[in-house]
Amino acid sequence: MKKSFLIDSIKAKASYLCIGLDSDPDMLPASLSRNAKGVVTFNKAIIDATKDLCVSYKINTAFYEAMGASGWEAMEETVAYIPKEHFKIADAKRGDIGNTSKQYARAFFEKLNFDAITLHPYMGSDSIQPFLEYEDKWAILLALTSNKGADDFEMLKVKESGDPFFYEKIIETTSQWGNPNNLMFVTGATRADQLASIRKIIPNHFLLVPGVGAQGGSLADVTKFGANKDVGLLVNVSRAIIFAGQDEDYAMKSREAALSYQLQMKTLLT
Amino acid sequence: MKKSFLIDSIKAKASYLCIGLDSDPDMLPASLSRNAKGVVTFNKAIIDATKDLCVSYKINTAFYEAMGASGWEAMEETVAYIPKEHFKIADAKRGDIGNTSKQYARAFFEKLNFDAITLHPYMGSDSIQPFLEYEDKWAILLALTSNKGADDFEMLKVKESGDPFFYEKIIETTSQWGNPNNLMFVTGATRADQLASIRKIIPNHFLLVPGVGAQGGSLADVTKFGANKDVGLLVNVSRAIIFAGQDEDYAMKSREAALSYQLQMKTLLT
Repeated sequence: MKKSFLIDSIKAKASYLCIGLDSDPDMLPASLSRNAKGVVTFNKAIIDATKDLCVSYKINTAFYEAMGASGWEAMEETVAYIPKEHFKIADAKRGDIGNTSKQYARAFFEKLNFDAITLHPYMGSDSIQPFLEYEDKWAILLALTSNKGADDFEMLKVKESGDPFFYEKIIETTSQWGNPNNLMFVTGATRADQLASIRKIIPNHFLLVPGVGAQGGSLADVTKFGANKDVGLLVNVSRAIIFAGQDEDYAMKSREAALSYQLQMKTLLT
Repeated sequence: MKKSFLIDSIKAKASYLCIGLDSDPDMLPASLSRNAKGVVTFNKAIIDATKDLCVSYKINTAFYEAMGASGWEAMEETVAYIPKEHFKIADAKRGDIGNTSKQYARAFFEKLNFDAITLHPYMGSDSIQPFLEYEDKWAILLALTSNKGADDFEMLKVKESGDPFFYEKIIETTSQWGNPNNLMFVTGATRADQLASIRKIIPNHFLLVPGVGAQGGSLADVTKFGANKDVGLLVNVSRAIIFAGQDEDYAMKSREAALSYQLQMKTLLT
């Protein structure tokens, strides 16, 4: 997907909502079978109920891999069901030496037809490069994540001029490997105070922001400190939307939760 | 697998060889079909031909994911075929927030029954912890990798007492999260000169060492600088063994290549 298409979609829908399909079979409504088949039924119902309210869906590969090969099939079926105009993110957090990353790019960009994949930057340029060679596909690099463990390494200071945080150094360096048309960054909503300084390094890149919802980040703060002239944000909510209801009306409940986020976004955009 | 079992196996076989099943279907011998079915036939033949010469097999998940759900099935079938006494590594390079890492642990430790998984440490303690909660299972953390990109971030200096390299800081910190019975580290053979200083930080942990073979690392140097009293090394070779032959006698050729490494190891151990 081209950046201009994504921006137009955000403006048309007054939404920068990404819905995370972390569809743990153990958490499905009681009316569904708690297996790969149930997950596909669930995902399709959630997508049908929310697609006009969000611009992106994010599939967390872990929940599908935990089901084995049938889970992988459920992922294939789900991503094929997502409408073409939605930005499809494989939240896969891969990253390996060049010849291996090339295989991951094939898996997620060619075989599964995702628009984007989340990646660990730790192994450096040749681990990311294979993903940047696809036209209109995106690498979304982990920068500052939303979890407590982000303090362990991401917030260490690098010994060089200006004493940048490690995550800032990652953003500075990796943003040179691609451009705002094929690179995004993950920056957690639980650290909204850092977004202003991140925007000084990368004013034009999209940010994928997890951590609103079950993890407690503030949508207003994220938007205040993180939005740029193109909006430039995809705010992900997973559990708080997809598991909003546990009864037979679960899809309607997820729509209501998504609508509540979209309405907040509409207000914040004006 | 318990550490004592692995050490006994290394001593009995005079081998610390791990064979990497990076079984790219496009590189299979012409006699095999270049799909998931061909990969399983190939892997089984390689395992049959080499199992007395190595103590471990490593499956690089990327090559299987690139085939889709049938690739995941091929991985399931392959790992089930590896004899019980071999240390089975999922070279998956995962790592995510706690509730997601828990799903990856289920996928690779419960569903697939691997003994170990390789992990990105970037996201910190809660991204690793779920893997350490399984008895006799192992987390293998990326420290200093064998690729050129390792210079980009792993070799940055951290601003703190002693100016450690970032990868050294990773080893220092993460080694406190587990112990030598459930944690290993990836340290590339192409950087054997760093192994002596790594051994000062973690004298007792096993190291998984890629980079011998196609990537050009020296087995003698790795052993000289990296071995400890328990040997403490798993040296991985992938392409140079599994693709040693391209004709119908490919399994015999892979055996010859594996034997050559095992004989070098036997010499280096005495």
